[in-house]
Amino acid sequence: MKYPSIPAAQALVQHCKAKGIKNIVISPGSRNAPLIIGFSEDPYFSCFSIVDERCAAFFALGIAQQLREPVVVTCTSGSALLNYYAAVAEAFYSQIPLVVISADRPRYKIDVGDGQTIRQDNVFHRHIGYSTHLRQDVVHATDSILRYVPHWLEKGSPEEIQESVQTFNDTELNKALNTAIESQLPVHVNIPFEEPLYEKHTQQTVTALIKKALSTEEYSVEEIYHFADIWNSTAKKMVLVGVNYPDTVSQHYLDHLASDPSIIVLTETTSNLHHANFFPSIDSLIAPIEKLENREEWFKRLQPEILLTFGGLVVSKKIKAFLRRYQPLHHWHVDSLKAFDTFFCLSHHFKSGANTFLGKFLPLVQGVQSDYFSYWNNIKKSYEIKRKAYLGQIPFSDMLGFAISLQAIPKGYRLQLANSSTVRYAQLFDLDPSLRVFCNRGTSGIDGSTSTAIGAAVYGNAPTLLITGDLSFFYDSNGLWNNYVRPDFRIVLFNNQGGGIFRILPGRENTDNFETYFETAHDLNASQLCQMFGFEYASADDALGLENVFASFYEKSRHPKLLEISTPRLLNNKILLDYFDFISSVFINR
Amino acid sequence: MKYPSIPAAQALVQHCKAKGIKNIVISPGSRNAPLIIGFSEDPYFSCFSIVDERCAAFFALGIAQQLREPVVVTCTSGSALLNYYAAVAEAFYSQIPLVVISADRPRYKIDVGDGQTIRQDNVFHRHIGYSTHLRQDVVHATDSILRYVPHWLEKGSPEEIQESVQTFNDTELNKALNTAIESQLPVHVNIPFEEPLYEKHTQQTVTALIKKALSTEEYSVEEIYHFADIWNSTAKKMVLVGVNYPDTVSQHYLDHLASDPSIIVLTETTSNLHHANFFPSIDSLIAPIEKLENREEWFKRLQPEILLTFGGLVVSKKIKAFLRRYQPLHHWHVDSLKAFDTFFCLSHHFKSGANTFLGKFLPLVQGVQSDYFSYWNNIKKSYEIKRKAYLGQIPFSDMLGFAISLQAIPKGYRLQLANSSTVRYAQLFDLDPSLRVFCNRGTSGIDGSTSTAIGAAVYGNAPTLLITGDLSFFYDSNGLWNNYVRPDFRIVLFNNQGGGIFRILPGRENTDNFETYFETAHDLNASQLCQMFGFEYASADDALGLENVFASFYEKSRHPKLLEISTPRLLNNKILLDYFDFISSVFINR
Repeated sequence: MKYPSIPAAQALVQHCKAKGIKNIVISPGSRNAPLIIGFSEDPYFSCFSIVDERCAAFFALGIAQQLREPVVVTCTSGSALLNYYAAVAEAFYSQIPLVVISADRPRYKIDVGDGQTIRQDNVFHRHIGYSTHLRQDVVHATDSILRYVPHWLEKGSPEEIQESVQTFNDTELNKALNTAIESQLPVHVNIPFEEPLYEKHTQQTVTALIKKALSTEEYSVEEIYHFADIWNSTAKKMVLVGVNYPDTVSQHYLDHLASDPSIIVLTETTSNLHHANFFPSIDSLIAPIEKLENREEWFKRLQPEILLTFGGLVVSKKIKAFLRRYQPLHHWHVDSLKAFDTFFCLSHHFKSGANTFLGKFLPLVQGVQSDYFSYWNNIKKSYEIKRKAYLGQIPFSDMLGFAISLQAIPKGYRLQLANSSTVRYAQLFDLDPSLRVFCNRGTSGIDGSTSTAIGAAVYGNAPTLLITGDLSFFYDSNGLWNNYVRPDFRIVLFNNQGGGIFRILPGRENTDNFETYFETAHDLNASQLCQMFGFEYASADDALGLENVFASFYEKSRHPKLLEISTPRLLNNKILLDYFDFISSVFINR
Repeated sequence: MKYPSIPAAQALVQHCKAKGIKNIVISPGSRNAPLIIGFSEDPYFSCFSIVDERCAAFFALGIAQQLREPVVVTCTSGSALLNYYAAVAEAFYSQIPLVVISADRPRYKIDVGDGQTIRQDNVFHRHIGYSTHLRQDVVHATDSILRYVPHWLEKGSPEEIQESVQTFNDTELNKALNTAIESQLPVHVNIPFEEPLYEKHTQQTVTALIKKALSTEEYSVEEIYHFADIWNSTAKKMVLVGVNYPDTVSQHYLDHLASDPSIIVLTETTSNLHHANFFPSIDSLIAPIEKLENREEWFKRLQPEILLTFGGLVVSKKIKAFLRRYQPLHHWHVDSLKAFDTFFCLSHHFKSGANTFLGKFLPLVQGVQSDYFSYWNNIKKSYEIKRKAYLGQIPFSDMLGFAISLQAIPKGYRLQLANSSTVRYAQLFDLDPSLRVFCNRGTSGIDGSTSTAIGAAVYGNAPTLLITGDLSFFYDSNGLWNNYVRPDFRIVLFNNQGGGIFRILPGRENTDNFETYFETAHDLNASQLCQMFGFEYASADDALGLENVFASFYEKSRHPKLLEISTPRLLNNKILLDYFDFISSVFINR
């Protein structure tokens, strides 16, 4: 095995290995040669080569999302690094330990007019768990540094200085990688290299000093008695769950919540929680009420006294607007790391994982007599019947296409949803409990859905389906420029020729300006990209055609497949809005 | 005409108009609706709609590069903004006034778990001329703010506070836009909007207070006498010019420099300067010397006493390495705004445009007897003959393809060069003086060459040709997703199936690791992208085929065209290195 001759590169690779970081996503370059050598020569690491850094970072994010462990993404000097920023922000808000390692030039070459040279240190300052700029090895580069920048050196012999450089770098690397592990946040390590970059040693010349990451502390049990008392004297309790990893909450606890007459549990598609008594289509509950004349009365009936939340960001704008206006007396959030004050009334943060919390809290809970659940459950059952009726009468459209597509997904698939109309449509339907659902809801960007999905599919037995919209898909078309796409990877692309979601917004008009600047109407289709990047291509523009494609779409294949569903740009919006009107009769006739 | 109802949006549009900023590149969204309304409703502005923000920003950069005036690029809230970063850094180092305007949510909605919401203020802190976060209008949004964040308001009536908000915003907008104009730097205006976003007024309700930009001061004439004395007593003077706008230096001054026996003028392809006595292929001069045993002697003969530089960044690594090692006694840089210490020996910065400086300096200059020019000019003539001979004997390759392609460009074209092998190859040849050459050398990134070229082609009579390599082209393939590509736009794409430039570097090996992580070998071609985005496609893989295509390539057409030139991946590198060997006999036989 060979090692990069540059000590800092050796140390960095040793740190990653010691912390169990196995997956390394590399973008090509020359300045990062010592890192490429270090990672690719050691069979411990699985290396991936992806040219477009924006895609590379989202691909790495996808791997980290599935493995729930840090993944490295590394690039050369210059603007390359800046293309990581969208994925770094997503990782920051979705609490994914993306480890950015950027090769840099020595400091004296910054801002002197060298090519591919920018100010790389701390570029992500607004959205990063920890940023560090490592010190450059002196022993290695004394000659060139002394020649040009004689004032650069500290006092001491080169050996003494090198020792202090190594100590500094070890300390910083421990801090950076441990932050990624302990806080589940992205971190940035910027590492300057002097030429020669391609030299190798047959033996390691450096032994890094590793400090282990701490395990996350959980809150002590005593304080919850007080909260249990409040809980047990309250007849209207709402549990709301946003983005949440599959299989992280015991079904036993969910059954408990589902059987309490004083609790309603609202789950988003991304919550990966299922129970017949839960409310999975939040907008189908709230949107019709918004349309009623006596909505205030209805909303007050729905308003909880206690709101208990866990999981990450919530997709439904309607539930956010409702709970901000009709605030609960208490809002408690459960998360081992952080709590957003999403409804401007957060009163307590239980610093614990949801499963741990429920395991401690539920034994203290006593049933409370209440008709809160039964009242709303009746409404839910009514609008579920209405929805079925509505789907039976509408023409082919985004909504009908989603209904058919979601039903056709084989059991056990991992489902990646793009932003943002995709995840919103998916929220309208009940998904099969065997599906595991993911979506980049940290920033809710359209910029990396495809790359994330392809990265997320790399490991694991279950195949992955990405459902995406046209703007999101074409935006991240370089996501397909990837040698690691599994043959069982599937994409369902809803192409409504533009950002149809903007049609739903109030105040828009059917003007040229609207079509150009908001909707960005286009007539692209995905067939050429499929040909270019080796995807089998199928298309459908009606229900029958769609069902025909699905008859064989998930069968084993030599190549990944994409199905493009064309829907009517001008009609989709009306069909969605009419749906909420249609089910609102549930409330009016009550 | 209609106006956005939000006062801050009205003010911002008025500021842009008052400063003569006409071109607005818009990416779709909802949060930026007030800006879209403001810009697109006013016929003063030319608006462009581009979905992928990375491409949008480089497209805007291209327009600004050609017009040499600020161009606005504007987007919705969330990660959209972060995709601008590569273009912002390029603008920062290339001194292009790119004006980034990002719509944001109100401050109380940041970090509470709302969708498409990040910390947008000051994200570009390392590479921006000025960043500002405007204050939110209170009159407009009092209701929602008071509801959720009662502590938010200052003391005073809503009207008083609104007045202070407007004063603050006017001050900040003047600072930001004037920085863009005065310092030729990118700036960032972040502007928070509360809903409703789509409302319009038929009359303006705000009158912004505009402060004009200052004209750039130039240095006083007195100080140059001292420098003229030094100049006049020196027999070896080198003038070196990097990136420089066409037609900015009077030919009269160039003739003066070209006829002085004590001066040699080294010009890069991007300098847009031409004279028979200049040295346009710097690497053909330096590279052969590097190979000689007695190179030290040769380099000392070439070493100047005075180095005078103007223009932006220098492409040639070889001239940088040479001048850093064989430093001149004096290095003077001429630029009205900034001077990089590229060779670690900068001794004076003339704060002036090159033309103004030469107009003042040259009248003070006396001829100095010297054989500096004639000695090196003889060598130049010899290697020019050798180069011709070499091109006559090599097989089809990047080098021969470039020679043929550069010769085939019609007179008067604007030539955009991608990074980085493209611009390096172009440096080896003399270009026709009627061509106007541009390249993103600020960060030397491969990330936005196509988008920049398409933006740069929008205005002006002369058609534009982009020459690019495969990695750069496929990286920015979304650059073609653009409704503003002129039918006379042309692309010549050198496809050597990977990052062939890395083969030239010392220390690399022909291993799988090398092909995967450095060279990123691939088998893509551009035909499907051309079909998708409406380009006529042609291809060639030998000299004859290439000349056949060029016979009609530049003829008028209904659609833009792309010519893909396939060259042998494994051979290109050897042919280039052999070239320097071949011409080095010029020195050996002397």
